[in-house]
Amino acid sequence: MPIDSPAIRWLDDHLLLLDQRHLPLRTEWLAIHDAAGAAGAIRDMAVRGAPAIGITAAYGLALEALGLGRRASLETLRPALETLAASRPTAVNLFWALERLQRLGADLEGEALGRRLAREAESIHQDDQAANLRLGELGAALLPHDARVYTHCNTGALATGGHGTALGIIRSAWRGGHLREVIAGETRPWLQGARLTTWELMQENIPVTLVADSAAGMLMAAGRVDAVVVGADRIAANGDTANKIGTYGLAVLARHHGLPFIVAAPDSTLDPAMTDGGGIVIEERAADEVRRVGGQPLAPEQCPVYNPAFDVTPAALITAIVTESGVVHSPDAASVAEHLSRLNRRS
Amino acid sequence: MPIDSPAIRWLDDHLLLLDQRHLPLRTEWLAIHDAAGAAGAIRDMAVRGAPAIGITAAYGLALEALGLGRRASLETLRPALETLAASRPTAVNLFWALERLQRLGADLEGEALGRRLAREAESIHQDDQAANLRLGELGAALLPHDARVYTHCNTGALATGGHGTALGIIRSAWRGGHLREVIAGETRPWLQGARLTTWELMQENIPVTLVADSAAGMLMAAGRVDAVVVGADRIAANGDTANKIGTYGLAVLARHHGLPFIVAAPDSTLDPAMTDGGGIVIEERAADEVRRVGGQPLAPEQCPVYNPAFDVTPAALITAIVTESGVVHSPDAASVAEHLSRLNRRS
Repeated sequence: MPIDSPAIRWLDDHLLLLDQRHLPLRTEWLAIHDAAGAAGAIRDMAVRGAPAIGITAAYGLALEALGLGRRASLETLRPALETLAASRPTAVNLFWALERLQRLGADLEGEALGRRLAREAESIHQDDQAANLRLGELGAALLPHDARVYTHCNTGALATGGHGTALGIIRSAWRGGHLREVIAGETRPWLQGARLTTWELMQENIPVTLVADSAAGMLMAAGRVDAVVVGADRIAANGDTANKIGTYGLAVLARHHGLPFIVAAPDSTLDPAMTDGGGIVIEERAADEVRRVGGQPLAPEQCPVYNPAFDVTPAALITAIVTESGVVHSPDAASVAEHLSRLNRRS
Repeated sequence: MPIDSPAIRWLDDHLLLLDQRHLPLRTEWLAIHDAAGAAGAIRDMAVRGAPAIGITAAYGLALEALGLGRRASLETLRPALETLAASRPTAVNLFWALERLQRLGADLEGEALGRRLAREAESIHQDDQAANLRLGELGAALLPHDARVYTHCNTGALATGGHGTALGIIRSAWRGGHLREVIAGETRPWLQGARLTTWELMQENIPVTLVADSAAGMLMAAGRVDAVVVGADRIAANGDTANKIGTYGLAVLARHHGLPFIVAAPDSTLDPAMTDGGGIVIEERAADEVRRVGGQPLAPEQCPVYNPAFDVTPAALITAIVTESGVVHSPDAASVAEHLSRLNRRS
């Protein structure tokens, strides 16, 4: 089955990534030939979104193994694994994908290993797209009829293997005829909402309105939002969810206004080893991401900045977590454990 | 008494306004010679902040009267009054200042009217600065010791006649030795926090950290904020407060985290004629303010945008309203009415 992925193209001996830093103004592709190239693209945010990061890392490791040829082994791949694992700390999908590939490395080496890792990276890519389509359907069923959905950051085809997580739910709801409008928060500092979510939705003629992040509260108070749907970078065993900075504030606002707050993510985003959100490492990024926009200085050059890329939303504020294998309503340690045990029985 | 106002300079036959659209990168002054010039500077946000808008409008009307010379009268000033009143709809200080000047026009005309309006505009300017210094002291007394204060937009010397409202409280607390740190939300779309608040605070070596607006929730959850202090553009008779978009979301977050939420404004911001916040006209501004930053396109050019400049915070979420004449704790219709009746007994 061909992979319908607008941002990640696998060409057997290299990878093409749509450079999302320039969207929607310019469409430029980055050619990736090894693990260092993949890690750089992840770190510098040419590719972003937890599932897309996992897929890119998998292809990066496969490329490294293919490059090593007969010398490929778990041992010779160790530096590449470390480079990829160090690229960004918060999204668990990255570590999940690398572990899935490492398990293959235990039994294989040389060119067979390279070929096998490449096939496995393609599987991860394909599986993610299929997962998004399933979770999209499951999530769309949770939305009220004719829903006006507020979303944050970009969780669409650009952030995943295709279709999207939160945006996958939105796409599925639109196709099913029960979505009225998407309200996209611009998502400072990287403006993924303004640059990417609007662009994706406009390509499919799904009605979208862009707002400054700080307009979310007044929109809810004015009765112009029926549900908030967001993605996730890591979900702890008790349902606490790390996602793009600002997600927590939206969850507090949704609770204050009695609105459903839905988290959408593939099962690979669940991290059973993480007891609760308190242990999740929150990446802090460079001050200039806040002091500047598109390279243009806005704030005083020496101004101190705090720039966390993510925050943690406590499970108690989450109405439902939607994955490809089911919906966890009112998530907590017990309901997430039950979901995970259903997964383990299946696999 | 000379007026120590860094952004508004009165030179008897014209007005100089520090063009705040270019700060902190460039320091440019706009020369204003009549009411149309003043209205344009207000509408295009060369000058902003409710008290500064009121002061600028007063000088603009005085300049118009001085220009009319012997022909100056309430009748010949009518078009200028209308132009100024139409420049921005939300801040009540604008209408308050124009009404204060209009009352003088009932008894005077010709050159005497021009001279009298100019003196009155200077009084409004001076009174606002004095009011800020008093409310700064009153508000600082409400802050916990060694406070870390989150603030939004710019409410400093640039937004007022001098010293500032919310930033006046912060300045007074710093001078009194009981402020640890200011956290400034950048305040999209105009970035008054990033461009102006940081600049003002850094000039006085008051410790400031700049954050994206959407980081406020996680900072509160992490225990890094002790109080939220904001300004106001209009306060209704029941305490409902219109202020920069995002203020309402901060109030909901402050309540969720049990933090004091303090509104600082001169008495001229109180609008007894407005029963509650539901009646306050919220200005909607151009889509390109959100689609672009500093003229640079970020979002798709045709993307629909909703760009409200203000929101309304219900009085029930406000811990205290601080004006130059006192503190209204837990504001509601009764406590605001009592505050207003104290004012009327004094004047």
